Formats: sequence, C-alpha cells, structure tokens
Amino acid sequence: VRIFRSRIYTAVALLVLLLLIGVIGFKYVSQYSWIDALYMTVITITTVGFGEVYPLDPASKIFTMLLILTSIIIVGYALTVITEYILSRNNLEELKQK
Amino acid sequence: VRIFRSRIYTAVALLVLLLLIGVIGFKYVSQYSWIDALYMTVITITTVGFGEVYPLDPASKIFTMLLILTSIIIVGYALTVITEYILSRNNLEELKQK
Amino acid sequence: VRIFRSRIYTAVALLVLLLLIGVIGFKYVSQYSWIDALYMTVITITTVGFGEVYPLDPASKIFTMLLILTSIIIVGYALTVITEYILSRNNLEELKQK
Amino acid sequence: VRIFRSRIYTAVALLVLLLLIGVIGFKYVSQYSWIDALYMTVITITTVGFGEVYPLDPASKIFTMLLILTSIIIVGYALTVITEYILSRNNLEELKQK
Ligand SMILES: [K+]
Ligand SMILES: [K+]
Repeated sequence: VRIFRSRIYTAVALLVLLLLIGVIGFKYVSQYSWIDALYMTVITITTVGFGEVYPLDPASKIFTMLLILTSIIIVGYALTVITEYILSRNNLEELKQK
Repeated sequence: VRIFRSRIYTAVALLVLLLLIGVIGFKYVSQYSWIDALYMTVITITTVGFGEVYPLDPASKIFTMLLILTSIIIVGYALTVITEYILSRNNLEELKQK
Repeated sequence: VRIFRSRIYTAVALLVLLLLIGVIGFKYVSQYSWIDALYMTVITITTVGFGEVYPLDPASKIFTMLLILTSIIIVGYALTVITEYILSRNNLEELKQK
Repeated sequence: VRIFRSRIYTAVALLVLLLLIGVIGFKYVSQYSWIDALYMTVITITTVGFGEVYPLDPASKIFTMLLILTSIIIVGYALTVITEYILSRNNLEELKQK
C-alpha cells in the first residue's frame, strides 16, 4: 500500500510538472498570454484539442509535439499506477474471500 | 453486487450533474444558446473537441478548464467502477471454475 | 471462447452500424457529400475531432451529439468485451501454471 | 517475460512505422511541409486533433481516415500488450504471496 501511495504522489507531481512545462513553453516559445498558455496546455494534455489559440510557428509546433509525447508517457505511467492499485486491491479481497 | 449497483448509480448521477454544470456554465458565462451550450459541453466532456462554438473570453476559458478537470475526475471514477465490476465478475467465474 | 467470439462479432457489427448511421446522418441531416459524411463520422467516433467539415445547424448538432453518445456506448461495449477476453485468457494461463 | 519484451518491441516498431506512413502521406498526398506533415501525424494519431493544418482534398481525407483506422489497430495492440504485461506481473506477485 505504501508503495502505491508514493507512486501516486510521483504521478501527481509529474502531472503538475507537465502543466508547468506547457504553460512556460506556450508563454515563451509561442508568445501566448498566461491564461492562453494554461488553456492551450490543458486542451493539449487532455486531447480535447479545440484548436490552436493562435497559429503556431514551426518552433511552437515542435514544442507542442514534445509536450504531447511527454504527456502520453506521464499519463500512461499514471494509468499503470491506477490499474495496478485496483488489481492489488482486487487480489486482497480475493485472498479474504478464501 | 449491491455495492457496484450503488456505485454505478453514483457515477451516472455525477455524469448528469457534469452535463448540467456544463450547459449552465456555457449558457451564462459564455452567453451561448441552450443548444450550443449543450453541444459545447458534449464535445468538451467526450474530448471530441471540434472547436469552440464561439470564441471564448478569459472567464469562459477558465470555466472550460474547470469543466475539463472535473470531467476527468468523474470519468476516471466511472471507469474505475466499471473496471472493478468486470474484475469482480471475473473473480466469481474463477471461483466457480474451481 | 465461443461466447467471446460471438460477442466480438456483435461489437464489430455495432461499429459498422454506427459508421453507417453517421454517414447517412451527415449526408441527409447536414447535406454533406458522401466522402465528407464518412470523414466527419470517422473524426467524430474516434474523437480526433479536427473540426466540423462545414458549420452545423441545430438539427445537425443534435444528430452529432446523439452519434457521440451512441458511439460511447458501443465503444464501451467493445472495450468491455476485449478486457474480459484478455482477463479470461489470463485466467486460463494461471490455471495451467497450477 | 521474453515474450512480452519481443511484443513490446513489435508495438514500438509499429508505432514508428505509423509515424513514418503519416509523415510521408501528408507530405506527398496533401503537399504539406515536412514539419507540418509530422505535426499533422502527431495530432492525428494522439487524437488531439487541433484541426487540419491546411484544408484537405478528398484524397487526403481518405488517407487521413486510413491513418486513423491503422492507428486504432496499432494503439489497441500496444494497449493489449501493456495490459497483459501488467496482469502477468500481477499474477507472479500473487503466486509469490501464496
Ligand atoms: K480531439
Ligand atoms: K479540434
């Protein structure tokens, strides 16, 4: 249980870091306002993807692709942690039933 | 089984609540018509994200981000309930096989 | 195993039906060309959601929302079938190891 | 364990292949620049779907649909491999507990 708690903290910390990288990137690479940079980061990471807030130059497109790829790895890690947590809880209940 | 039934009801109730929050938010924060507010809510929650029906002002962007984050938590809860339900049914079948 | 095979066939049949409903709907409700209706259906069901091929009138928006909701149910059913199939194969291997 | 390692390599190879097909397709079917073709491929495969970088002609729409469908199969394969890997690790731990 302790192992899962620390892994869940790691996953949450990585997601916050991802949000920070996104906001700073769109602010300084794409010259977005803070609110637009946060909005663009949220719709990118969650794959809602309404559309670029303002058209992106090539450097911004490369940054966006790197953000998407990093996002997949971190979200994938978070999903694995959650799945393993559900499975381990499931095993415990199974053992109790026996 | 009873526990799952009540959890599934909770998940469905939360999803209906999410839809209501979205519609009311886009209606009054973003001045959308009822049909556009519902359409915007559905394409946001499901991450289809065709694009904002009308451009969003900063307040609407903040509301949209909050809706997306709430949506992730509720959809995540619903998926966990469904996964646990499938796993528990799977365990029952396993026990029967023995 | 036979049960899973018939369930997988059901899931595939439902997905083909969903595609047909989408194409016919965008063709006749939204007056899209066949190719645009198919393209719109594919980007809607898969939640890629590049954007509406042409702006949608209220009736088309309602149709699109119904298509998205039907899509979620059918894709959810397909995912459940696949998950149960993986789990049952997993159980069989577990039994063999004992 | 070895079986999973080779399956994970297959999944990674298929994803790289998918990326290559997407880039070459958007470059030559849709006349995109290399960077736009890569960007379009990444936002298509990940279903972020901000919007077509430039409007697509019918041939490009057919290519995009084929790319999305291929993507679903390959991502589905990758997810199945990962799920089975998590489950098998879970079984090993269960056996150890007994
Ligand atoms: K999308
Ligand atoms: K979009």
